[in-house]
Amino acid sequence: MSGPEHMNTVEGRYVQMDEVDWVDFPEALSAGGIRWKLLNVAPESGAWTAIFDCPAGSSFASHVHIGPGEYFLTRGRMEVRGGVDDGGDTAVAPGYGYEACQAYHGRTYFPEDSEFYMTFLGPLNFVGEKGETVALVTWKVAQDAWEASQS
Amino acid sequence: MSGPEHMNTVEGRYVQMDEVDWVDFPEALSAGGIRWKLLNVAPESGAWTAIFDCPAGSSFASHVHIGPGEYFLTRGRMEVRGGVDDGGDTAVAPGYGYEACQAYHGRTYFPEDSEFYMTFLGPLNFVGEKGETVALVTWKVAQDAWEASQS
Amino acid sequence: MSGPEHMNTVEGRYVQMDEVDWVDFPEALSAGGIRWKLLNVAPESGAWTAIFDCPAGSSFASHVHIGPGEYFLTRGRMEVRGGVDDGGDTAVAPGYGYEACQAYHGRTYFPEDSEFYMTFLGPLNFVGEKGETVALVTWKVAQDAWEASQS
Amino acid sequence: MSGPEHMNTVEGRYVQMDEVDWVDFPEALSAGGIRWKLLNVAPESGAWTAIFDCPAGSSFASHVHIGPGEYFLTRGRMEVRGGVDDGGDTAVAPGYGYEACQAYHGRTYFPEDSEFYMTFLGPLNFVGEKGETVALVTWKVAQDAWEASQS
Repeated sequence: MSGPEHMNTVEGRYVQMDEVDWVDFPEALSAGGIRWKLLNVAPESGAWTAIFDCPAGSSFASHVHIGPGEYFLTRGRMEVRGGVDDGGDTAVAPGYGYEACQAYHGRTYFPEDSEFYMTFLGPLNFVGEKGETVALVTWKVAQDAWEASQS
Repeated sequence: MSGPEHMNTVEGRYVQMDEVDWVDFPEALSAGGIRWKLLNVAPESGAWTAIFDCPAGSSFASHVHIGPGEYFLTRGRMEVRGGVDDGGDTAVAPGYGYEACQAYHGRTYFPEDSEFYMTFLGPLNFVGEKGETVALVTWKVAQDAWEASQS
Repeated sequence: MSGPEHMNTVEGRYVQMDEVDWVDFPEALSAGGIRWKLLNVAPESGAWTAIFDCPAGSSFASHVHIGPGEYFLTRGRMEVRGGVDDGGDTAVAPGYGYEACQAYHGRTYFPEDSEFYMTFLGPLNFVGEKGETVALVTWKVAQDAWEASQS
Repeated sequence: MSGPEHMNTVEGRYVQMDEVDWVDFPEALSAGGIRWKLLNVAPESGAWTAIFDCPAGSSFASHVHIGPGEYFLTRGRMEVRGGVDDGGDTAVAPGYGYEACQAYHGRTYFPEDSEFYMTFLGPLNFVGEKGETVALVTWKVAQDAWEASQS
């Protein structure tokens, strides 16, 4: 009698990407003028998707991928986990990368103008020098930040 | 302007399990009188959860776990992938098993009265002798079967 | 030439639960003598599974489910999100619950001796009074804590 | 003693996409000369990622997304679920789409030269006129097809 709730299938969604304006990505989490467009959030599993515009010299602050993430670098060059000279990868467009659950990105740096699209399962944990959490960017935090920027 | 859709957080759900009656599991997919209670479906990721009551001598037909599944055998004994004598596992209550994505279960057999709770990510692909799909039990098929049994 | 890496299918795993001893769950995250057994971690997706033994009067500290979690209460009574008298649920064995991604559990309290099995996708974020992260319990943190208790 | 297996964190992976040659996508599942590059498979969760080159007039055969999929159309135009004139979407580059778990794609058609990148959680179920499974393309089937094309 009090069995499982009936659930409906989820509807498809579409975003016309060139009709969405770039928005500044929070300076607390990046440097050098990174901009982004949020494309999707998936509240059941905690996944989210975005595209980032990264000028030459920009970077993301240190963070841990709490779940896996996949990027498609469409333009430019991205040094992840220190870049290839320091045990990490240097992605050159067009490049694909799988960043595993628990991957630590001490600094993600863009030596030239770059753009990448990325799908995330779960949050990014931005951390301080001792590994303490500075900001836990879940799908919900990402959506809240995006919507605040649209008003 | 036409950015990502706003998504709400998902609500929690609860099932009082002893107030839900056991229902016969489809005979096309099992033998020997297996009964089940569907507990949850998660339509975004395709996950679903159920508990099964398996009399001595009952079995499930051959199937492939299309995604990972985890069981908690609360009572009895379950021979999976041929049982321990044939390269598989023989679970004895209380036992926990992780059945990996793509695991093939030629026959899951219960030599004594048993009960197990299981969470599934993605469908079960019941297959014939040549590996052809006989029934693809997704969360949606599971929900449809469950709801048909309640009317 | 430098295409995708070849990946092997994952192997199944089994734990004979009654051959694993209960271990104290960290006091920083709980009160009243909660004990646990870690059953599985899944490093690709960040999932993990455990069973908890909760004496009458015990509780978990405030936490947020960063991803969805499902519990099967096998014994006793569990008040989640304040319990049914405060807008949450009071689970009574045998009970099943789906705790959604982003669910906040201000206090999970056990008024009588209880036991529950739970699968988690992603971490638990234990938080302080202002919502700040006190401990982010990922599959990796859970495994490290478990293995430290076994030596 | 017989507790959970120790699991290692997963390593990151990188594919230099322009160093991988396009390969014909199976004709049984498409028409008009579609080519692809497999970029990643994730065997624990059953996820996989690929990029597709679709000449004007090409199409995919009817299929169901067993789990959610996300595409980034980088070039051209793609009519999904009949296109916008028939209740579906017509994606125009640059366009992002979320295809939900259980989405049925009766015909995906490319009226002009197009390219899209897509991440999949779980398999594509290619179906015949009565909904019967013609081919169930899991991460494993995708990897096997890719590797066969490389030898």
